[in-house]
Amino acid sequence: MTGRRIRVGLDVGGTKIDAVAVDDADEIIGRLRRESGWGEHEVVANIVAAVRDLAAEAGFALDDVESAGVGIPGLVDADAGRVLHAVNLGVESLDLAVLAHERLGVDFRIENDVKAAALGAAVLRGITGSMAFLNLGTGVAAGIVIDGRIWRGSRGTAGEIGHLSVDPNGRLCGCGQVGCIETLCGGGALARAWGRPGALPVRDILDAAELGDADAVALRADLFRGAAAATRALVLSADVDRVVIGGGLTALGSRLDAGAREALRREAASSAFMRSLRLDERIETLPAGSPVAAFGAALVGAAESSKEIVSHG
Amino acid sequence: MTGRRIRVGLDVGGTKIDAVAVDDADEIIGRLRRESGWGEHEVVANIVAAVRDLAAEAGFALDDVESAGVGIPGLVDADAGRVLHAVNLGVESLDLAVLAHERLGVDFRIENDVKAAALGAAVLRGITGSMAFLNLGTGVAAGIVIDGRIWRGSRGTAGEIGHLSVDPNGRLCGCGQVGCIETLCGGGALARAWGRPGALPVRDILDAAELGDADAVALRADLFRGAAAATRALVLSADVDRVVIGGGLTALGSRLDAGAREALRREAASSAFMRSLRLDERIETLPAGSPVAAFGAALVGAAESSKEIVSHG
Repeated sequence: MTGRRIRVGLDVGGTKIDAVAVDDADEIIGRLRRESGWGEHEVVANIVAAVRDLAAEAGFALDDVESAGVGIPGLVDADAGRVLHAVNLGVESLDLAVLAHERLGVDFRIENDVKAAALGAAVLRGITGSMAFLNLGTGVAAGIVIDGRIWRGSRGTAGEIGHLSVDPNGRLCGCGQVGCIETLCGGGALARAWGRPGALPVRDILDAAELGDADAVALRADLFRGAAAATRALVLSADVDRVVIGGGLTALGSRLDAGAREALRREAASSAFMRSLRLDERIETLPAGSPVAAFGAALVGAAESSKEIVSHG
Repeated sequence: MTGRRIRVGLDVGGTKIDAVAVDDADEIIGRLRRESGWGEHEVVANIVAAVRDLAAEAGFALDDVESAGVGIPGLVDADAGRVLHAVNLGVESLDLAVLAHERLGVDFRIENDVKAAALGAAVLRGITGSMAFLNLGTGVAAGIVIDGRIWRGSRGTAGEIGHLSVDPNGRLCGCGQVGCIETLCGGGALARAWGRPGALPVRDILDAAELGDADAVALRADLFRGAAAATRALVLSADVDRVVIGGGLTALGSRLDAGAREALRREAASSAFMRSLRLDERIETLPAGSPVAAFGAALVGAAESSKEIVSHG
């Protein structure tokens, strides 16, 4: 088939690539997952293979691909198409846009994965004003989208609320500080604090909490109050209208959403000011496996180059 | 004199009005202070008198006044020119723009005082990118200015970082929460925690701390770590490039600036990520008595009406 205009988006996570093909109407017409691999060489090879496989499965030619976008953790230089310090991928420095273009003949744009997911979430959820995408995964970070544009701030740390300390007596964070929001509601920090074997430690914590395990009850409370603290930080500083919770911890399903709302309600109970913000009504949690990150990457890939802003629409 | 184009700005605080007259070149050509008064009637009368006295002192006619702006605490409906719940002024609801216009024949615009001060600080300090004005007064709040525009957020709570809790075991805040940033570095909260008589309690705390008083040493540390926490919250969420500290506590002079910088350095010592942000180099403290709030009100007064944005220049 020719004449189609397909945008490809790839969310390159620490273990998996999630790839989608998006048509002119913003519909996802194909999706696949494959391993990310380790190190510069494997990551590029798997991205290239993901695009080829996606084209074969969804029935389009590489010539139909108008653009490709990649959301990837680490420091991204969007103008140069380069990613730095993606430690979970074994990538120190990678000229990803240039290398992928050489292999596929398709224009690539690269974006930080959380920022790409924020754009995807805003569009998929139809949020036209201001919103934050709160990513609860191994780590915790947010991306902010205002009027359909990723908001970067001055030096790229907009939305890095995972490393705000909210408890001087809290747990040590991987960043070196104490009591960061990430120590409360990051999957990695919760797994370390739990310290018991299991493939899905945060789910194990919630299950054990429901059976009355005291350690699990405390960690479950941390998870929910961490999500609540992140929401407050985003609203009381950037004043986003909505907070959309996504990331790997959405695998917890409705327990995560209900717990975060309940924490927001409980912690606002003593404060007329906080109650007036109605934060429990301003959050929503994405379904598990929602393709916001890959979809957002497809939007990023199709956006015009801009040093500060990626716009959509 | 006729043909001059004067903008008047008034910062209406809990006790004093600070009024300035600004010429075409953004120069302050006159300034006076008088009592704010109590209740709707007195506040309007004193604002009107301040404009008349300023004109007489600085040698311009009311006909020369192009616009007037008022920065005032409380909830401001800028479009309606109305202020609500300015509890420190005994004002419940006041149609200030209409009433002041009736008395003086000058167009008035009303703005929240911290937001007006933020705009004034950005222009007076020549900050063209993004900045936050961190007001350390009786309470704690910030205003954010990006590219010369006040940034409101979705519901007017952008910059309300005073009520972010950073310590679940901290002091009770007037807002009903525990451990808010305002409990650490708000002048009112520090005075209550100090609990000893004196007209300038925060200065008394610093003086006593230098003499080794243990309570004072602890409260001094709270002041500085509160200012540091506010700075981190603003940078890790909105990612403003600069944080300008203003408000009544700038009367503490270089001790405030040095203490906040030292707290930022010390608290970043354990974290490569936080050190990379160089927050201690991104703050500055205004001199005591700086007219940023009144100057910013003059800029607000001259801005075109806009529901969401007040632009300058």
